[in-house]
Amino acid sequence: MSPKITTELLKQLRQVMKSPKYVQEPVQAYILPSGDAHQSEYIAPCDCRRAFISGFDGSAGTAIVTEQHAAMWTDGRYFLQAAHQMDNNWTLMKMGLKDTPTQEDWLVSVLPEGSKVGVDPFIFPADQWKRMSKALRSAGHDLVPVKENLIDTIWTECPPRPCKPLIVLDLSYTGVSWRDKIVALRSKMAERKVLWFVVTALDEVAWLFNLRGSDVEYNPVFFAYAVIGMNTIRLFIDGDRMMDPAVREHLQLDSTLEPEFKIQVMPYGSILSELQAVGAGLSPKEKVWLSDKASYALTEAIPKAYRYLTPYTPICIAKAVKNASETEGMRRAHIKDAVALCELFNWLEKEVPKGTVTEIIAADKAEEFRSQQKDFVELSFATISSTGPNGAIIHYKPVPETNRTLSVNEIYLLDSGAQYKDGTTDVTRTMHFGTPSAYEKECFTYVLKGHIAVSAAIFPNGTKGHLLDSFARSALWDCGLDYLHGTGHGVGSFLNVHEGPCGISYKTFADEPLEAGMIVSDEPGYYEDGSFGIRIENVVLVIPAETKYNFKNRGSLTFEPLTLVPIQTKMIDVNLLTQKECNWVNDYHQKCREVIGAELERQGRHEALRWLIQETEPLIRVQ
Amino acid sequence: MSPKITTELLKQLRQVMKSPKYVQEPVQAYILPSGDAHQSEYIAPCDCRRAFISGFDGSAGTAIVTEQHAAMWTDGRYFLQAAHQMDNNWTLMKMGLKDTPTQEDWLVSVLPEGSKVGVDPFIFPADQWKRMSKALRSAGHDLVPVKENLIDTIWTECPPRPCKPLIVLDLSYTGVSWRDKIVALRSKMAERKVLWFVVTALDEVAWLFNLRGSDVEYNPVFFAYAVIGMNTIRLFIDGDRMMDPAVREHLQLDSTLEPEFKIQVMPYGSILSELQAVGAGLSPKEKVWLSDKASYALTEAIPKAYRYLTPYTPICIAKAVKNASETEGMRRAHIKDAVALCELFNWLEKEVPKGTVTEIIAADKAEEFRSQQKDFVELSFATISSTGPNGAIIHYKPVPETNRTLSVNEIYLLDSGAQYKDGTTDVTRTMHFGTPSAYEKECFTYVLKGHIAVSAAIFPNGTKGHLLDSFARSALWDCGLDYLHGTGHGVGSFLNVHEGPCGISYKTFADEPLEAGMIVSDEPGYYEDGSFGIRIENVVLVIPAETKYNFKNRGSLTFEPLTLVPIQTKMIDVNLLTQKECNWVNDYHQKCREVIGAELERQGRHEALRWLIQETEPLIRVQ
Repeated sequence: MSPKITTELLKQLRQVMKSPKYVQEPVQAYILPSGDAHQSEYIAPCDCRRAFISGFDGSAGTAIVTEQHAAMWTDGRYFLQAAHQMDNNWTLMKMGLKDTPTQEDWLVSVLPEGSKVGVDPFIFPADQWKRMSKALRSAGHDLVPVKENLIDTIWTECPPRPCKPLIVLDLSYTGVSWRDKIVALRSKMAERKVLWFVVTALDEVAWLFNLRGSDVEYNPVFFAYAVIGMNTIRLFIDGDRMMDPAVREHLQLDSTLEPEFKIQVMPYGSILSELQAVGAGLSPKEKVWLSDKASYALTEAIPKAYRYLTPYTPICIAKAVKNASETEGMRRAHIKDAVALCELFNWLEKEVPKGTVTEIIAADKAEEFRSQQKDFVELSFATISSTGPNGAIIHYKPVPETNRTLSVNEIYLLDSGAQYKDGTTDVTRTMHFGTPSAYEKECFTYVLKGHIAVSAAIFPNGTKGHLLDSFARSALWDCGLDYLHGTGHGVGSFLNVHEGPCGISYKTFADEPLEAGMIVSDEPGYYEDGSFGIRIENVVLVIPAETKYNFKNRGSLTFEPLTLVPIQTKMIDVNLLTQKECNWVNDYHQKCREVIGAELERQGRHEALRWLIQETEPLIRVQ
Repeated sequence: MSPKITTELLKQLRQVMKSPKYVQEPVQAYILPSGDAHQSEYIAPCDCRRAFISGFDGSAGTAIVTEQHAAMWTDGRYFLQAAHQMDNNWTLMKMGLKDTPTQEDWLVSVLPEGSKVGVDPFIFPADQWKRMSKALRSAGHDLVPVKENLIDTIWTECPPRPCKPLIVLDLSYTGVSWRDKIVALRSKMAERKVLWFVVTALDEVAWLFNLRGSDVEYNPVFFAYAVIGMNTIRLFIDGDRMMDPAVREHLQLDSTLEPEFKIQVMPYGSILSELQAVGAGLSPKEKVWLSDKASYALTEAIPKAYRYLTPYTPICIAKAVKNASETEGMRRAHIKDAVALCELFNWLEKEVPKGTVTEIIAADKAEEFRSQQKDFVELSFATISSTGPNGAIIHYKPVPETNRTLSVNEIYLLDSGAQYKDGTTDVTRTMHFGTPSAYEKECFTYVLKGHIAVSAAIFPNGTKGHLLDSFARSALWDCGLDYLHGTGHGVGSFLNVHEGPCGISYKTFADEPLEAGMIVSDEPGYYEDGSFGIRIENVVLVIPAETKYNFKNRGSLTFEPLTLVPIQTKMIDVNLLTQKECNWVNDYHQKCREVIGAELERQGRHEALRWLIQETEPLIRVQ
């Protein structure tokens, strides 16, 4: 990976930052967040402005360019990647380390007195605007909206915004019709006494209407907004995709409907003016509900007194608790996914010793096996196929320049997943195709102990996921090891592989309590820069637990792994496991054998079945 | 405990809420927080206004009185106590339970349109003002400051504000002179570019000037404010205590000093006008640093643009990290405290079977033994001496109406501590003087496992205490048990027994990272309403840990127990402990024997020494 040369681009950006053509007054700094107008984590190529200007294309990062400086804030997953992808014009700001300044503090320290800091108000979330604006103002600077995105003015070859056909999801997948979802949403709106709800997140629009798209790679979403009133439904979407008869029928666009279920289709670009019209027509006490992460531009369209902002929308929370149809779909998807991985690992065991399998070949092979499964749509994120030192780059994606050959001497880490019409998967396994060292096994075993500690945890109803994060670290901490990322994230149901409002992380305190039916990942790791990476990840379903005393009828929860792929026993130092942990591994492998074994049998994949049987031999612990 | 009859008082309060003598416009609700003008947790009798109006005298709780309703918000420690102390005029709002409304939501649900909600601006913290005011405004109501405290207008027998003599602490106790503390504070002020710092918390004033008082029971503090400029020191304090020659010499009030260390003594009541004068004299960019928990009245004295507010002040943070003199003092205090408790428990073992020892007698006896120790000043909080069902009232204090006799059939819980001139103690032990049931032992052992999990935890430098809270609960959770309070709080050095900015709680996310030298409590528990309470509490010192891999030189921390009092082995079901936990108990008891044994020997307390030896016999675990 050689860094992108950005000298000329930065020069151009600094010119437009002063150009009266684009800014009312010159801005001394310009902030480039990661997201798009929907605050998406994964974005379309036309929205990859931060990557365009800096070269750094990780999923999280904020760039700030001033007249003298260019700085990039990103988190522990991306320290190595960002350092590799950016040239000397850029300073890397490692978030989470003690001495790293916040963006606000840094701006205040470098800006000349009375500066203007520009930002695209369509991309900047309202909650961040508030924080940033306050910090700048108290230091004598101003945060100002710059209507035209300044990167777009210098990005001559910016690709067009995608506008791909939609997929209709029927009731057997979603469990609830879009009409019933609207009814439930309106009842939440009535509870909070709001008259309007603005749907800004792409996955929330998709979930609400039981539609999927492919405008953004890996995320089955489409560019759209929706504004739901007590008697109206407005869907803002471009292109001829509303001409598709299946979509028209699904949305009943041509049927005679009760007016409150009649969907008005409007151009994507008209959201701001329509929202401004809604805002202008409000009477006192009439409120409009928005996510506090909605863009500053849309939030400002509603006069302050009429806004009702919450960190999580009712759609976000409803979407996180999977119903029976969704849960069953997720189970099916994970069984198919495990079949593909058994095929892959069986194939790797044979091929790796020949020295012909690169990271890219392995990733492609994983996709090939997945694509053979029923209802496969696409991958759910860029496959992290990494061997040896590349494994320490937490969100690594192999490219020709970095592509290593798998060998019997290095640890191989594969973090991958897929979108099936019935569910989304995300699984990490760390394998050795030769003989791992004692140290590698030791580290792997601590990570496994952390994985089990979370997966087997029992906790009272109402517990937030962040309270479980330290369980995943305890065994590592005891030996002076740690990892610089959270332990788990919410997973969508044939939707985004990362979704709120729940998760397991030391960083998130605003998460909603875990509830039966929520689905999260459990993925502790350990990374040794320049040497190897280890991560063990299952997607797990929150289920009721049975305990001796049941929390005085408050009830309790635990996790059930949906991912059923063997954890390589060769990497485990059995003597470091307790008997309970050893039993967990054996029970888990027994379940893999039964469930995935039956499916491999059914699909006639006998060689992969033999591999599965061999990989799920029970561990025996010497007392 | 019979409830306080409040019908007449509430009637009077509702009258003054409408009286033009006290309010510009009638207020439809009046909020009564717990604290005093310094946001103290423990308050002087003249400040116990919430207890006066409601009867509920726990340390935490907020009352709100409207024309129709009277409601009290308190946390899990006080659910039972509040229910017992309040009459039917009051509704108990159980904080932390899912269905309990917030104060804001409740107000919005009960108030008539366009209401005014009154509050004493001297008592209401600025951060709460902001939150409450915003929530009320968005629902069409107003939060208004009512200058005269409305309770004071109806509280005819309100006691006067205490004004007791001061204690001078010399360098052997404090380790750092007040001048050096001022220098360090000014350097922090220079770092943040502020010109003034306002000290509002009583323990911060006491710590800064190396003075102690006794204006508030259990907390060695005195009513005062301080305003520190870059070249001036103003101390706002009443009474003739500044006439004390020892105090005058300590503060060098009569010496020829560099002007920047000359202390100007001013009347306590003049803080507001002085601060307003400071505020009026500021030039642009000149800032005044206040805690965001300072009162709304003082915060408003400084125009908004000149305020610099932080959740924790630099004094709060410096005070939390104990220096070598303070740590040694805390060690000495805990050794003396353990001697007193060995005497007490030895005495109880003999006396309880006679049936003559009540909770109050036991608490008095504990105080008597403590008072025999060198440098004893007073207790550090009201002794929780509780047997049987009273143990389930988490912050129980025995009074004649509830006073139970200790017996060989019930669990006894003693949570107590003292102020010594060299340190503050806080220890809980749970004992059975007969034969505990298998269930009682089971619960005790889970609590012990949680206590050990925190005490023996190893974690990287920079970890916040709240990340350790779940370790204390894991063993309880596995069986469906939990406790409704945090696991630990910061402990002062001959100062408040509860202090910030660190702690171990699922509730606090704003805590500062744990650092070597900080001192916190480790006190998980289990409570069975109507039956018994169990809690095991040590005060522990944060110390560097040695680990195999040392977090890539980030360094690691663990805890060292300062409390050295035997944990009753009779209550332990050894078979529920792991070998590691069993070793922890045996090592701990070995240290108790060595350190406390030597002191008991030195003090010639041979009977208590024999008790200690017997109570610290090693546990043997059957494999």
